[in-house]
Amino acid sequence: MSTCVFCAIVEGTAPSRIVYRDDAVIGFLDIRPVTRGHTLIVPREHSSGLADLEPDVGARLFAAGQRLAAAMKSCTLSADGVNLVVNDGRAAFQTVFHTHLHVVPRHDGDKLSFAKGLVVRRDNDPDTTAEILRSALEGDPR
Amino acid sequence: MSTCVFCAIVEGTAPSRIVYRDDAVIGFLDIRPVTRGHTLIVPREHSSGLADLEPDVGARLFAAGQRLAAAMKSCTLSADGVNLVVNDGRAAFQTVFHTHLHVVPRHDGDKLSFAKGLVVRRDNDPDTTAEILRSALEGDPR
Repeated sequence: MSTCVFCAIVEGTAPSRIVYRDDAVIGFLDIRPVTRGHTLIVPREHSSGLADLEPDVGARLFAAGQRLAAAMKSCTLSADGVNLVVNDGRAAFQTVFHTHLHVVPRHDGDKLSFAKGLVVRRDNDPDTTAEILRSALEGDPR
Repeated sequence: MSTCVFCAIVEGTAPSRIVYRDDAVIGFLDIRPVTRGHTLIVPREHSSGLADLEPDVGARLFAAGQRLAAAMKSCTLSADGVNLVVNDGRAAFQTVFHTHLHVVPRHDGDKLSFAKGLVVRRDNDPDTTAEILRSALEGDPR
């Protein structure tokens, strides 16, 4: 039995709203979104951080982040920009020690709501948000 | 003549403190560091953001970030953690429209100085900082 919550999500033994999968990584909605659609991409294979992440898998993580970013802009979430963020180590605000890439959709002029989002971090309709992203990614020609 | 400041740095026609080079990307100190050692990694070939960044080059960008992160921890900068960040689009705080990955060394308990760093952003001895990182990367066995 895994004690890592992200491994449990990868194994399907913990609930999540998965929006993206490939053979190396999966993407699911952050349960405490900074903005609506905030997604975490995690390698299927456990690593605690950048030091023990296989570089090939890191490349796949970033590639998935790039795809998610494109989907967030093209879908009805209509992101104007995206932040890709890895917080590596407690000193860098990492809280779950399974490597993950934050993909955060941003909108023009949301600076204040982004700061607010760091405190509130709630999506009132995450199921719809997940569905929007899944559909956008299925339509992704790449 | 390039009008992109990061292309000019890649071409060597604008000054910078380069700490890392490979055939796909270069890394140099941010002139307004959030913390000491804050490095930007940029593809040699121009792209404005994630939408026009070749996925293969994105993979190389992330791989270089992983190497820099390891160097920041092993060298005398003694980072306890690292943030890897891509700000894609003005809405996401992108200010130079040549794709770049921020690699920000972090230290335990620096949360306040990080917030302060966003305002101050100054390194009193960047030449030494650059030399420390270059040496650490040359010693990197990967």
